[in-house]
Amino acid sequence: MEPRTYAEAGVNVEQAEGFVERLKLMSKRPGHSKLWKAAGGYAAVYPITESIGVACTTDGVGTKLLVAHELKKYDSIGIDLVAMCANDLICVGARPTSFLDYFAIGKLDDQMCDQILKGIVEGCDQADMILAGGETAEMPGLYQPGHYDLAGFAIGTVSKEHLITGEKIKPGQNVIGVASSGIHSNGFSLARKVIERSSKHYEELLKPTLIYVKPVNEVLEQLRTVTGLVHVTGGGWRNLFRLNDKVGFNIESPLPVPAVLQEVGKHVAQEEMYKTFNMGMGLVLIVDGDTGPIVEIFKKHGFSAAQVGTTTDRVLTLTVKGMPWELKD
Amino acid sequence: MEPRTYAEAGVNVEQAEGFVERLKLMSKRPGHSKLWKAAGGYAAVYPITESIGVACTTDGVGTKLLVAHELKKYDSIGIDLVAMCANDLICVGARPTSFLDYFAIGKLDDQMCDQILKGIVEGCDQADMILAGGETAEMPGLYQPGHYDLAGFAIGTVSKEHLITGEKIKPGQNVIGVASSGIHSNGFSLARKVIERSSKHYEELLKPTLIYVKPVNEVLEQLRTVTGLVHVTGGGWRNLFRLNDKVGFNIESPLPVPAVLQEVGKHVAQEEMYKTFNMGMGLVLIVDGDTGPIVEIFKKHGFSAAQVGTTTDRVLTLTVKGMPWELKD
Repeated sequence: MEPRTYAEAGVNVEQAEGFVERLKLMSKRPGHSKLWKAAGGYAAVYPITESIGVACTTDGVGTKLLVAHELKKYDSIGIDLVAMCANDLICVGARPTSFLDYFAIGKLDDQMCDQILKGIVEGCDQADMILAGGETAEMPGLYQPGHYDLAGFAIGTVSKEHLITGEKIKPGQNVIGVASSGIHSNGFSLARKVIERSSKHYEELLKPTLIYVKPVNEVLEQLRTVTGLVHVTGGGWRNLFRLNDKVGFNIESPLPVPAVLQEVGKHVAQEEMYKTFNMGMGLVLIVDGDTGPIVEIFKKHGFSAAQVGTTTDRVLTLTVKGMPWELKD
Repeated sequence: MEPRTYAEAGVNVEQAEGFVERLKLMSKRPGHSKLWKAAGGYAAVYPITESIGVACTTDGVGTKLLVAHELKKYDSIGIDLVAMCANDLICVGARPTSFLDYFAIGKLDDQMCDQILKGIVEGCDQADMILAGGETAEMPGLYQPGHYDLAGFAIGTVSKEHLITGEKIKPGQNVIGVASSGIHSNGFSLARKVIERSSKHYEELLKPTLIYVKPVNEVLEQLRTVTGLVHVTGGGWRNLFRLNDKVGFNIESPLPVPAVLQEVGKHVAQEEMYKTFNMGMGLVLIVDGDTGPIVEIFKKHGFSAAQVGTTTDRVLTLTVKGMPWELKD
């Protein structure tokens, strides 16, 4: 089989980016200047007082929904939904507090809906958030039988003092990778094209996204050395370029690539893999100082983490040990 | 044609309510006790300091989306999306600040997406909110060609002192109705069954939901006599029962019913109409005192408003002048 790309899988990233750029231009208002500048656009932060801001973000789980539908297993997709939002919030230094879900379905099916809800509640527990509200919309005619969509909204708080802007990232700082559980919730339009439904790896696609909130809350409370956090989502390792455009990355000791991503990698060019998937790192931390105590906190919470490299002065360039290519923004 | 009901249109309200009840039970956590009690469940309010809370809510526009799709007119559905969220926020006394949208589509279509976005931005302007962020998800395989879904998420702030809980509502207070522009964004699964695509009223279905934020901001700033606000959404006038279970309503001078709802009413039993649609009142205010200054503020902002009745001691019972039935919760 020929190597495939995300675009061939029906997702036109350039077109989407064009839309988002037009959106930013068209929606720009003087009120936007009130927002605090936060790292990587992971969340908008609106000041409530001079010293406290509210961070908010929204996300969905993409076509991972279709895998849940195909496998008729609905109890973990809600974990993914919470993960996608909560992991974004922590990247600006916020502590997640409340979650709201939007759940749209063609026809309510009690058993299926309860399973989806169970996952959302489990996700909120893992993220130390409360499920503060939500909307359940039954829309006959819009969704095909058994189809549904989920959107999540997450809110957190952050003090101005501890807001992460990414501006403190400099060349020569340390980079920690925290392991992913698998493919997480991005790149499914491509992954579903190359992993056969009959493959033993198909069920692994559904493994829930890890929620990094609890260890990150502890790290940010105890240590002030973290200069950036990267939730590795759509765009893969290019997410590392979101925080600061004056540094690059040298990844000398990457974490192991999960089996399901190795399987996808048999059909997709290697560079494309790193530009689309998390490739073993669901979260990246950039640290101005010793990485040991931070790695220990992640391990204590049951996560696998290690120092994987350093920041460099090769602006917006990422090299990985042993790879003949380098990623650029 | 036989009178129809919402259930016959494929929306099982009882089943949905059952799901929401199970959801509340399953998601209950000790953290929920931190939330401030706010009127009617219109928004969750999370305290940021002892005196300031953040109100948040989420909503969609239901199958009004399909009308936009059928008419190939996409520039106002975003106004509905913002309206559904912002009008909920003001019912707890909050001042809306930020909006986030979730926009999912099978295949990005630049022209259509720009139109949808234009409506969202227009809605934010009408609601004095900034579009702080959003998620655009291209999901080939989940949505049929040309189909899409929208979810909105709105945040506002409210001081503890001015939080509207509904507890100050007593029998004998005055009730103001503020006119709707038409059907707004609820009851479309039923309305689309009874209004033919060829009818001259079909296009009226798409008229955007009014956004009541600006006059309500002004009312709540200037006067402290409002004891309750009701955004009249799904469930029609039964929404009036959401705020306080110790009063009833006597509506002596209802506002005119918009033509499009009169047309729907030719095919639907009258009581069912009042239990499903806004019937001319998009927003209701309950006032402990003179209604004149409040009505004036709405008029100044271009809204039609009038005192329509009073609260009574006939608990959770609503009567309308000239109608043989009464609504009960």
